[in-house]
Amino acid sequence: MSDNHVLWKNLGMDLETHDLLCEALPQAFGDVYLSQEHRPERMDYFNMVVADIHGIRPAELVKFQEKGGKVVGSFCIHVPDEVVLAAGAIATGLCSGSQFWVPGGEKVLPTATCPLIKASLGARFDRTCPFFRICDLFVGETTCDGKKKAWEILSEDAPMYIMDIPQMKRDEDFLKWEKEIKFYMKKLEELTGNTITEEKLHDAILTSNNKRRALQRLNSFRKLDNVPISGRDSLLIHQIAFYDDPKRFAQMLNTLCDELEERAKNEFSVYKKGTKRILLTGTPLSIPNWKLHQIIETSGGAVVCEEMCTGIRYSEALVNEEKGSLDEMVKNLSDRYLGNIHCACFTPNRARVDDIIRLAQEYKVDGVIDVNLKFCNIYDTEGYFVEKAMREAGIPCIGIETDYTDEDAEQLKTRIGAFIEMLQ
Amino acid sequence: MSDNHVLWKNLGMDLETHDLLCEALPQAFGDVYLSQEHRPERMDYFNMVVADIHGIRPAELVKFQEKGGKVVGSFCIHVPDEVVLAAGAIATGLCSGSQFWVPGGEKVLPTATCPLIKASLGARFDRTCPFFRICDLFVGETTCDGKKKAWEILSEDAPMYIMDIPQMKRDEDFLKWEKEIKFYMKKLEELTGNTITEEKLHDAILTSNNKRRALQRLNSFRKLDNVPISGRDSLLIHQIAFYDDPKRFAQMLNTLCDELEERAKNEFSVYKKGTKRILLTGTPLSIPNWKLHQIIETSGGAVVCEEMCTGIRYSEALVNEEKGSLDEMVKNLSDRYLGNIHCACFTPNRARVDDIIRLAQEYKVDGVIDVNLKFCNIYDTEGYFVEKAMREAGIPCIGIETDYTDEDAEQLKTRIGAFIEMLQ
Repeated sequence: MSDNHVLWKNLGMDLETHDLLCEALPQAFGDVYLSQEHRPERMDYFNMVVADIHGIRPAELVKFQEKGGKVVGSFCIHVPDEVVLAAGAIATGLCSGSQFWVPGGEKVLPTATCPLIKASLGARFDRTCPFFRICDLFVGETTCDGKKKAWEILSEDAPMYIMDIPQMKRDEDFLKWEKEIKFYMKKLEELTGNTITEEKLHDAILTSNNKRRALQRLNSFRKLDNVPISGRDSLLIHQIAFYDDPKRFAQMLNTLCDELEERAKNEFSVYKKGTKRILLTGTPLSIPNWKLHQIIETSGGAVVCEEMCTGIRYSEALVNEEKGSLDEMVKNLSDRYLGNIHCACFTPNRARVDDIIRLAQEYKVDGVIDVNLKFCNIYDTEGYFVEKAMREAGIPCIGIETDYTDEDAEQLKTRIGAFIEMLQ
Repeated sequence: MSDNHVLWKNLGMDLETHDLLCEALPQAFGDVYLSQEHRPERMDYFNMVVADIHGIRPAELVKFQEKGGKVVGSFCIHVPDEVVLAAGAIATGLCSGSQFWVPGGEKVLPTATCPLIKASLGARFDRTCPFFRICDLFVGETTCDGKKKAWEILSEDAPMYIMDIPQMKRDEDFLKWEKEIKFYMKKLEELTGNTITEEKLHDAILTSNNKRRALQRLNSFRKLDNVPISGRDSLLIHQIAFYDDPKRFAQMLNTLCDELEERAKNEFSVYKKGTKRILLTGTPLSIPNWKLHQIIETSGGAVVCEEMCTGIRYSEALVNEEKGSLDEMVKNLSDRYLGNIHCACFTPNRARVDDIIRLAQEYKVDGVIDVNLKFCNIYDTEGYFVEKAMREAGIPCIGIETDYTDEDAEQLKTRIGAFIEMLQ
């Protein structure tokens, strides 16, 4: 039995079923990633992380737990990692991006639920993901109907805590969010036995901001006329950001960015001349969901920006770094986490449309693709405003709905290929 | 041109399309209602109201507006009518229950949206419902994703105000709801130019409670072994409760209840012996959605209780009637409107399951049908808990999903027929 298998067995996983996933992943990764030309050398670190995604990092987390540490999983970029770090715990993302987990979710959830939510519950109930076995606490939120109600079912099997995210962004909603963050701090103090001090919360803010700065640096290269890294690689890095140790991640990403800086000096592009620059907007693309990037980048397009949770929304805004009282720093967290993330769960959400228009200019995009994960009602409905605003701004835009299966791949290739072809 | 046509024309309605609806309704009403045997005589009032549903009441509302009055429409039983009444305005329901309006909604909303929401937007955008033309203010809420985002689109065409409904029922959520009610009061004072006084709010609480009491009285007869009124007629009365003048409605319903009291004394039942008693739970049945009641009551069943917004949730709990300061009475409204309505929009929502079990006993039901309007994610997901709890309580239960079309009628008849047949 391999070390990984021992680890997974100790976590109570369904080894036989999980092996099927382990067998499929290298092929998928090879097709999408290793087939690319001109990849930066320092993608090696990220390749390694994803190649053993259920081994290396889970083993670290278990080791941390053996020393008494706690691991906290979450499903949404509104949940502030800073609080987890400040309590001396490790934060990890839990969103699931593979069809492999969907049927398990469908055993307990309506079919008409988005694949991300179904996969998340399937990963837990089927015991086929180590992260879903390891976490000492699962932090859900009330962002959308699907998640809000799914957490009730997940809580039958996993230790859950729910943060109630405001649905608007009025002054009273910011105050409410501060309160929720304080409840969350208390919960984590209870979980870890540690006290969250000003010092620790301030350190955590700096650590998280440094991770964001590294992602911002990565994205800055994607604004160049000659883009030195592919959309696929950029997406992978954003996805890994949710799982990796934040300090190591920032360091490795900065090392990669040094390489990209060299490329930029030499005006080196991974894309052929005439490749169309695409901004993706919409629902998140959780690991290993690389489907759309792969289709776009093999159809004459380059994804240069993701106005998504797995993209700009995660990294663009920093938390104010001024050191203050706990109250003041919580206010700064509330301002950033509520004020600067323009999820379709808010009403109204005009700021998202404004963001797309701004990003389309900054990243000099030729076209916008508005992606919706099937049965995500909030992004689907908001598509009305996105597509209207793009028409008014004269930015070509198409709306795409997809899920985690490969069934629509050919159809998407045709539609996206036609869209890119008509871009000037 | 008939008086009604003049009224509708003045309201800017699409007369030609609306005439198609007017032509279809009498047939539908005849099939479901006039075909019944043993209807109480005093259903005549309610028959009249529905026979001219787009004429009589709209004409009253317009007359009220001509004298400077304001009409406020809402879509959810969490929105307190008392505030509207206290401001001297008229409150009217706006939920739409006909497939006629759905295609109009689908022009602006995702197909994967529940028919109630699609019909509501269609009724406005297609200009085929007088209530959707008359209202001076449309009050939406953040109960579910579909509505929350649909209101943004509706607000492009109609004057909207949004109440932010809490997603949980903790102490702080009750305080939040009090605040939202106070915002709403302010909005209505601005709209009407009237001040909401203690006296007026107290009167409004009494008026609304009296309407609820009349509905409670109606429902009390449905607990009897010999049920003197059909589920179809009871549903119609509940549906009309949202549109009619509250004082007149209570008076007419009490008059009907006097007749039912006579019937009860004589142990008169509208049902044949051996008819199975059914409790319906789930999503609301807006007028003229009579489909399920019709199928059940022509398949050997009697609907004796609706654990629905068009049912128990609307009428069962009263607002505390103690006269107090505005703050105190708003607290009473918050307690009732947040504390006593167990919509699936809340997390967790165990109280709803407890209600179903309690109601199943009180109404001596033989079986429970859990109804979901297609694409209503919150009730669909909560079905997991409903069906589990019914299994545990030994109450036969089936889950049904349907929409406003007639396409599934035959399939539903077969499933519901088989379910009723197997009840002992």
